[in-house]
Amino acid sequence: MFKPTQFLHGGDYNPDQWLDQPSVIDQDFKAFENAHLNTVTLGVFAWDRLEPAEGQYNFDWLDEMFDRAAAQKMNVILATPSGARPRWLAEKYPEVLRVGANGLRNRFGERHNHCYTSPVYREKVRQINQKLAERYGYRKNLIMWHVSNEYGGACYCDLCQAAFRQWLRAKYQTLDRLNHAYWGAFWSHEYTDWSQVEAPMTQGDQNVTGLNLDWRRFVTDQTINFFDAEVAPLRAVNPAIPVTTNFMGGNPPESHVFYDLDYQKFAQHVDVVSWDSYPNWGNDYESTAELALKTSLMNDTMRSLKHQNYLIMENTPSMVNWHPVNHAKRPGMHVMASLQEVAHGADSVMYFQLHQSRGASEMFHSAVISNRGGSHTRTFQDVTRVGQILQRLKGLQTTQHQAAKVAIVFDYDNMWALDDARAYANATKCYWATIQAHYRYFWEHDIAVELVSVHDDLTPYTLVIDPMHFLMAPAFATKLKTYVQNGGHLVGTYVSGVVDQNFLAYQGAGMADLITTYGLKVTETDTLYPSQRNAVNVFNRQYQVQDYCDLVTLTTAKTLGTYGKDFYAGTPAVTENELGTGRAYYLACRTDADFLQSFYHRLVQKLQLQAKLPIKKSTKNVAIQVRESTTQRVYFVINYSHEPTQVTLTTPLNNALDGQTVRGMQTLSGYGVLIYSEAK
Amino acid sequence: MFKPTQFLHGGDYNPDQWLDQPSVIDQDFKAFENAHLNTVTLGVFAWDRLEPAEGQYNFDWLDEMFDRAAAQKMNVILATPSGARPRWLAEKYPEVLRVGANGLRNRFGERHNHCYTSPVYREKVRQINQKLAERYGYRKNLIMWHVSNEYGGACYCDLCQAAFRQWLRAKYQTLDRLNHAYWGAFWSHEYTDWSQVEAPMTQGDQNVTGLNLDWRRFVTDQTINFFDAEVAPLRAVNPAIPVTTNFMGGNPPESHVFYDLDYQKFAQHVDVVSWDSYPNWGNDYESTAELALKTSLMNDTMRSLKHQNYLIMENTPSMVNWHPVNHAKRPGMHVMASLQEVAHGADSVMYFQLHQSRGASEMFHSAVISNRGGSHTRTFQDVTRVGQILQRLKGLQTTQHQAAKVAIVFDYDNMWALDDARAYANATKCYWATIQAHYRYFWEHDIAVELVSVHDDLTPYTLVIDPMHFLMAPAFATKLKTYVQNGGHLVGTYVSGVVDQNFLAYQGAGMADLITTYGLKVTETDTLYPSQRNAVNVFNRQYQVQDYCDLVTLTTAKTLGTYGKDFYAGTPAVTENELGTGRAYYLACRTDADFLQSFYHRLVQKLQLQAKLPIKKSTKNVAIQVRESTTQRVYFVINYSHEPTQVTLTTPLNNALDGQTVRGMQTLSGYGVLIYSEAK
Amino acid sequence: MFKPTQFLHGGDYNPDQWLDQPSVIDQDFKAFENAHLNTVTLGVFAWDRLEPAEGQYNFDWLDEMFDRAAAQKMNVILATPSGARPRWLAEKYPEVLRVGANGLRNRFGERHNHCYTSPVYREKVRQINQKLAERYGYRKNLIMWHVSNEYGGACYCDLCQAAFRQWLRAKYQTLDRLNHAYWGAFWSHEYTDWSQVEAPMTQGDQNVTGLNLDWRRFVTDQTINFFDAEVAPLRAVNPAIPVTTNFMGGNPPESHVFYDLDYQKFAQHVDVVSWDSYPNWGNDYESTAELALKTSLMNDTMRSLKHQNYLIMENTPSMVNWHPVNHAKRPGMHVMASLQEVAHGADSVMYFQLHQSRGASEMFHSAVISNRGGSHTRTFQDVTRVGQILQRLKGLQTTQHQAAKVAIVFDYDNMWALDDARAYANATKCYWATIQAHYRYFWEHDIAVELVSVHDDLTPYTLVIDPMHFLMAPAFATKLKTYVQNGGHLVGTYVSGVVDQNFLAYQGAGMADLITTYGLKVTETDTLYPSQRNAVNVFNRQYQVQDYCDLVTLTTAKTLGTYGKDFYAGTPAVTENELGTGRAYYLACRTDADFLQSFYHRLVQKLQLQAKLPIKKSTKNVAIQVRESTTQRVYFVINYSHEPTQVTLTTPLNNALDGQTVRGMQTLSGYGVLIYSEAK
Repeated sequence: MFKPTQFLHGGDYNPDQWLDQPSVIDQDFKAFENAHLNTVTLGVFAWDRLEPAEGQYNFDWLDEMFDRAAAQKMNVILATPSGARPRWLAEKYPEVLRVGANGLRNRFGERHNHCYTSPVYREKVRQINQKLAERYGYRKNLIMWHVSNEYGGACYCDLCQAAFRQWLRAKYQTLDRLNHAYWGAFWSHEYTDWSQVEAPMTQGDQNVTGLNLDWRRFVTDQTINFFDAEVAPLRAVNPAIPVTTNFMGGNPPESHVFYDLDYQKFAQHVDVVSWDSYPNWGNDYESTAELALKTSLMNDTMRSLKHQNYLIMENTPSMVNWHPVNHAKRPGMHVMASLQEVAHGADSVMYFQLHQSRGASEMFHSAVISNRGGSHTRTFQDVTRVGQILQRLKGLQTTQHQAAKVAIVFDYDNMWALDDARAYANATKCYWATIQAHYRYFWEHDIAVELVSVHDDLTPYTLVIDPMHFLMAPAFATKLKTYVQNGGHLVGTYVSGVVDQNFLAYQGAGMADLITTYGLKVTETDTLYPSQRNAVNVFNRQYQVQDYCDLVTLTTAKTLGTYGKDFYAGTPAVTENELGTGRAYYLACRTDADFLQSFYHRLVQKLQLQAKLPIKKSTKNVAIQVRESTTQRVYFVINYSHEPTQVTLTTPLNNALDGQTVRGMQTLSGYGVLIYSEAK
Repeated sequence: MFKPTQFLHGGDYNPDQWLDQPSVIDQDFKAFENAHLNTVTLGVFAWDRLEPAEGQYNFDWLDEMFDRAAAQKMNVILATPSGARPRWLAEKYPEVLRVGANGLRNRFGERHNHCYTSPVYREKVRQINQKLAERYGYRKNLIMWHVSNEYGGACYCDLCQAAFRQWLRAKYQTLDRLNHAYWGAFWSHEYTDWSQVEAPMTQGDQNVTGLNLDWRRFVTDQTINFFDAEVAPLRAVNPAIPVTTNFMGGNPPESHVFYDLDYQKFAQHVDVVSWDSYPNWGNDYESTAELALKTSLMNDTMRSLKHQNYLIMENTPSMVNWHPVNHAKRPGMHVMASLQEVAHGADSVMYFQLHQSRGASEMFHSAVISNRGGSHTRTFQDVTRVGQILQRLKGLQTTQHQAAKVAIVFDYDNMWALDDARAYANATKCYWATIQAHYRYFWEHDIAVELVSVHDDLTPYTLVIDPMHFLMAPAFATKLKTYVQNGGHLVGTYVSGVVDQNFLAYQGAGMADLITTYGLKVTETDTLYPSQRNAVNVFNRQYQVQDYCDLVTLTTAKTLGTYGKDFYAGTPAVTENELGTGRAYYLACRTDADFLQSFYHRLVQKLQLQAKLPIKKSTKNVAIQVRESTTQRVYFVINYSHEPTQVTLTTPLNNALDGQTVRGMQTLSGYGVLIYSEAK
Repeated sequence: MFKPTQFLHGGDYNPDQWLDQPSVIDQDFKAFENAHLNTVTLGVFAWDRLEPAEGQYNFDWLDEMFDRAAAQKMNVILATPSGARPRWLAEKYPEVLRVGANGLRNRFGERHNHCYTSPVYREKVRQINQKLAERYGYRKNLIMWHVSNEYGGACYCDLCQAAFRQWLRAKYQTLDRLNHAYWGAFWSHEYTDWSQVEAPMTQGDQNVTGLNLDWRRFVTDQTINFFDAEVAPLRAVNPAIPVTTNFMGGNPPESHVFYDLDYQKFAQHVDVVSWDSYPNWGNDYESTAELALKTSLMNDTMRSLKHQNYLIMENTPSMVNWHPVNHAKRPGMHVMASLQEVAHGADSVMYFQLHQSRGASEMFHSAVISNRGGSHTRTFQDVTRVGQILQRLKGLQTTQHQAAKVAIVFDYDNMWALDDARAYANATKCYWATIQAHYRYFWEHDIAVELVSVHDDLTPYTLVIDPMHFLMAPAFATKLKTYVQNGGHLVGTYVSGVVDQNFLAYQGAGMADLITTYGLKVTETDTLYPSQRNAVNVFNRQYQVQDYCDLVTLTTAKTLGTYGKDFYAGTPAVTENELGTGRAYYLACRTDADFLQSFYHRLVQKLQLQAKLPIKKSTKNVAIQVRESTTQRVYFVINYSHEPTQVTLTTPLNNALDGQTVRGMQTLSGYGVLIYSEAK
């Protein structure tokens, strides 16, 4: 676990672009000081500057950057350069370039265009990483390794195919088991030799769902395997330096969790989770508060990967260059957005990029120091303001985000399987949006939420929410049952427990433990057309229902609400099952937001999960997060609206930004942030 | 011609997936009995279970299935397994896999991925078919061969290209004739050697319309040629067993006839037409009655291929897994939908699938026996209800659909050519939708309609409707003229007689016989933008016109209606030509549905084509079809709405489901079906 | 410069399709006479008729066409046949076929499918061109060479890649300079050997903006190089015959200038500009006047390429076959559209095609002589009417379009760079639409406009408008400054002067000369989401603002208008800078049309740029263009509406069509044209 001595403020810096203009670099370091930056990330994509020809290394410039940083007490996060390979490498060893799902090998170009299996690429990466570790591994201001950059994508070359086959042999041992898992007797698809197995490819199989799922799992495992190989020489030299790699997620328009790699697995291999956060603040299709909700969920998701504080490795000082509309942050938005992430447990605010590149594909991505205006910009002032605030918060990086009593289950295998299932309606599956919908009540009411994997311990939580758990292993059904029997409260939904971990359908009534848990059997799932609606009658009113309706027969559950329409009108739509000392609720249909609001309101009251805060807010546009240590609590009060508002302190609190004690009504400006601390 | 001794009820059964679980198979056969199933289709896609390695056959399990079926008096329809090839076959003989229009050969995967030309594939198919024929050709309960599955697609490999060249040489004899047909002098495209000819391919020619059309014709012919090769060993062993292959069509969202193969040709090679019918009942963009109209047209189209009763080879007990929204059938819908097809001349209700697969791409396609719930499901009850009804109708499978006096011309060459023509507006050509529009009046008024090909005899029909006949050979124009001269009534429309069978434009005024038939010359065709409207003044009112307006000058025709707007206002838009003892009407523009309603109402009155039924209905949601034999008439009265309604019997009739005589007002429940018989 | 002795009227004629039907050709020539055609373009795509096998030539038929034309005093424009190659050529020399951006070589097919680099193709083209030049170069009725056809597209074969590398070496001399221009240090993209350079390709680099831009420039240069090679043998034989090639542009739905080739460069290599004009008259999404505006701009653009009269090489007598909707021209539209182009400086009205082809891809493109109806059609009458009018205008082809005092800057490099920039919002960049928006006021007020390139002399213009000049070289900023200092009036806009000619960002405040010119610095650009609006307060009212807002700080400029909203409310949005004896206006945001109307109205008044016309119109649907010689002025008054209207002559004028003197109020029929002349 990484424990910084201050909140990190800084970002990606590529002076390799201005080595022939030392005055630029001089000015940059001066500007870093002005903006209260304390950290630079060096070396991302710098391979061709570090090793301009095979085996010829040039570290002079990087030495100098370490020295310059040290001279003004800046930390260095040093990247391994594997995110982009030099031309000479691809030219001499074409195997390092990726092959697409169509079987064609890429040409040199772009970045992230390398095979994770290639022994040559691994060896070349090992060599440069070894050199970097040896040269910089004991530099005093080196605080972390930034391994590669935004891992992602897949390669379909022969080497990867062979590795996939090896992975499958290790998993299934025999072809019979493989054939059973992929239900090979269907469509004469049985393998008679391991050599026949290949990845799902454009002109081959794309509909063997078990194969598709295993391929996704393999891609994660092979990426992690490559990552581990990258890390080995680093840790061998100095195991004290923590390693991370920058994860992704939360991009417009859906603020969706990153899809291609199972970060819940990957996170076990990094010392600290870091990620790149690029919400499109100020867009025209959702309110700032709405986007803040989704971004808070993303931050909670990242914190939950290791259930520890994390880092923002990249965000933008103003706009990016790859959104459909690259909109400037309004005044105040940058402070608001930066502190939102700190509030959720981030111990850093880092930028891509410190100095904007003059040319090529990212020259219009905003930076601390811009092409236009240099450091004499509104953006630079915004960054400086964040720097000042983080300085004033010094010491609070030792606090952790408040432990949650509410957990939402999120599972990669389930997400992949549900989306790949030839079933239901593709346009309305929306697993992540469903998680967002269940998260809403808690965020709006300042109740901490943790995202849990199927491997996590559920016992710390008073309430566990497990939406659309389509692919569920029997072991997890048992875990749910035990959780409830021992006093836990569980909320499940429609489209759960349909297939097992091999993507094979459960037979008959499904898993016994799931039936026991919810006290009901699902007899069928009705998938509605987009404009069709049903209703649920519950809590003395009617709520709207759309998309999915499970039809259920109860074993031990009791009915809380019933369907309002169609041939299953009057049958159970919301149920409660008492089991041991706990309760399991089943929401058999996709309801409107009003229902979830009412439902969770009752549940929160009953379970006394309300946030106990010394601050009263008057609008849902304001959200409050709590970080705490053994000795104090810190309240981050953020206004996700351009409209000013007030909050009322119900007890005197310490203003963390100026040390004053304040009480009573406080004004929050548009996009304003108030930070209070309180001794425990 | 296939004459079943009862209505067939059953479907595709793949026990090959559960050979290691005999209890599953035991339960399945018990369930078949409970659901009143009398037929199983075996062996579809079962090649790798029948021939797990080249030349090593395993028929034990199939023997057992025949025995089990026989033991409970079930028929077997036996499939040839060519719809999917085993991995060993593709591995050893890569030529069996298809090559795409981009010139790249497929990998093993999916189904329907085989070259129809490959001598190796043909030989391997011949061998397995021969084995099946020898082993099962005289089994008592074998009633039919189901050859392959849903033929479709094309292959562009060198073998296919060579076959295409051979086909062209046979057709054109000389390159000069080929060059003339393809108008090769245009764009320096003349062939100087047969070897230069290739199929329309992604990176080659795609705009030589004559070539495109010939390629489509060749694909049909080569598919049939492959089919004939499949059938040869089957017929050689026992010519008494009828052969079929399952055709397709009617899929959402347009309920379009199958596009890729000319079924009018293909049908001449099967003993009985069978097809797979998958309307999306309960969708949210059209009423049930609207979808019923389109589905009735599809059934009439299939019956018309051989002008005989046909089979439903596949439909779904509830939902499929490949519609954009996979919506469950509401209670009653399955009976309604099944009997609709029987009403139009189907002698079977067969399902894909009897037992749902546990894994892979179709595991969520509903089945008689489900993964979830087994046979204890609403779906199973729906199937059972159909089984009961079909049992009660036993004997009526000897009736044929009532002979129609109204025919609509439908032609594959015309459809392909019209769509491929670089002319008019692609988005509004809509040949099939135009046929649906002309079909409406007759279906809503319970008047039987036959779909005729250009090779069919027109003399049985009082009225022939020939919409948008863009590509028309002179011989067909002569056939139309003769038909009218001899007393027939013909309705033609805009965009007719434009190109000949080689896709070459007619010169000057076009075909003399067509001018004589309609008594007019078309001078130009005005194509309207989607939002533009004209109008036609006729029958003392004005109707709306869109998309297409032929401008005509009359020779012998008289004007019934004139254009209401634009520079051709006042010129003829609807005409009538007296020729011999018949009449030919020309609808020069695309009108709204109201006009067609008025127009056909007048024509039906005049020609006394009204349905003479002893049943009066009060809503267009109810449709009535008649099947008859020499001794009796059977009336299928179906309510295509969830709202109950009444019909009134104007004479006492026999309720075919319970044998009671009924009279007067009868209630039709939502989606309800009433079946009456009457002696002649 | 080409000086015709009459307006040319004629078009593409391909008798090569009817060589076996001499009577067709007889009738065609008779029809040409009837339609008052005086010119035929022969030989387009006729290679396989001219050289049916390698080295075997057949000119007999072409000789005959020259004779036939001569016999009825028709000019011949002779095409080189390189736009489509014979099959034998592609078969023997596959290198002549193009390779796509995916690295795959095309098959024979379509047209325009040839490598511009291939030495073989160049040699084969040289040979046939040489033969044509020798045989026809001194034919009396040969008036022009039509070189190839509609050059366009690119090839990515190894030969082209090598030529591209050679082009880059010539441009950059050293790899260091190339690496700097492409900002190669970014993402480890530095070239260490020239051999590493390749074009932007599908599976390689697509985001190196400098490379993308150079590739576009190379494609233009290589196309011109090929064109020059085509022309060499023609000019060598008879340098007196002018050469042209038909340019493109103005196609629906945007009436956009041709995108792929820099015509401003290309025009320097032709003797006269000619182009193919295909507006979709009568569409349903814009008024006729709206489309006329855009088409006028296209004509002005083409005239401006050489600042001389030009030719319409192709237009359609009625409809084309490749618009989404192929709508017939209404009566009068063909005369209107033809004379619109003459009014803007065209000296010809030429058609594709004189005789419609019977088959293949363009058989439904309308022609003077049609498949349906031959020459007995409305279209033929429309063509004849144009022929009659052009005959009556004989002599006026010596007039030039009135010299403009208003210029709009248009630059290909800028268009390509702006669209390729990963910045702003792709959907709203709209460079050409912005030019259309600025053109509107002048066209609606009958004020002549010239489109100028960055290489053009600005001194002839009183007003220069330079919208969205994103990529601007310092030299052009200097040119603008000098222009203003010397008394010019300049209007610039948001998003200008951002990158240099190498696509590298300007640093700091940007180019000094641009700051001096406009008297302001841009501090940032705010890109709005599509539905977001700002406002500008100016001229005592408020106008709407969308898409782009530059935030500026003034140096010497003064504020005319300010932003109405958002955090930059009150800051300058419209400014005026006095510099030397001129003025430079900066429109910092994208405004609505009303603002541009008001703004230009004031400016036109101030600069006395109003059209001084002896004709008053009462609707913006009427537009007036002026052609003039040293002795006379000719006024083309055209009604771009189906509604009749009037104009009033404020002085007696000569009706150019009948020689009568007319005065006072004159009626313009729907789509009507009046042409008046007046002695100077």
